[in-house]
Amino acid sequence: MSETQSDRESGTQFIPKFDDKGLLSAVVTDAESGRVLMVAFMDEEALSATQQTGEAHFHSRSRGKLWKKGESSGNVLKVEEMLVDCDQDAIVLRCRPAGPTCHTGATSCFYRRLEDGILQPVKS
Amino acid sequence: MSETQSDRESGTQFIPKFDDKGLLSAVVTDAESGRVLMVAFMDEEALSATQQTGEAHFHSRSRGKLWKKGESSGNVLKVEEMLVDCDQDAIVLRCRPAGPTCHTGATSCFYRRLEDGILQPVKS
Repeated sequence: MSETQSDRESGTQFIPKFDDKGLLSAVVTDAESGRVLMVAFMDEEALSATQQTGEAHFHSRSRGKLWKKGESSGNVLKVEEMLVDCDQDAIVLRCRPAGPTCHTGATSCFYRRLEDGILQPVKS
Repeated sequence: MSETQSDRESGTQFIPKFDDKGLLSAVVTDAESGRVLMVAFMDEEALSATQQTGEAHFHSRSRGKLWKKGESSGNVLKVEEMLVDCDQDAIVLRCRPAGPTCHTGATSCFYRRLEDGILQPVKS
């Protein structure tokens, strides 16, 4: 195991491992219920903005720029805790949402389950 | 909104939206506790293998191939439910893990939290 990999896995230093596009996976969970609310990506800019403001920021792959969650809807995500995985290429943001997280108005973007190849509503 | 986007958001048809590398984000949660155990990627092959076997398969970006979680450790993930997000580019796998999910031996890969720039152990 390389020194960096060992440092990443067992050390106390935050050394985010961005992919070849400069991104980390970011999973938002509800700090109260633990439910997964959304999944997105963060680049260095989004990570820094999130740490500085305490509100979740992401990198929009489709728009190619920084995106503050809730910037238009007002449904911001207040970050209670940030968890980092073993190889530091993914982050869980435990958040308190100001409103529905999904742009469809659903509490979570994961409002459907796959059952025998068909999407069915999840009981919320 | 294009017809495909509308179909993806509100329809019952599963139309996974793979990125330019043919990948979806995949988040594994513990079906019992709801805790996030790991985050990875799935391509069409991994998705199909997961659906056919009921055990979680991913696409290893570093090795560039199909990867059955637990293939060497035995710590497979039995999939109880698959949730799909609004734009169908991310999946939550609610699983029953056969053992620790992280290769470090931790229950979850997210065993550290970021506090004032330093990684601290999460109480499990």
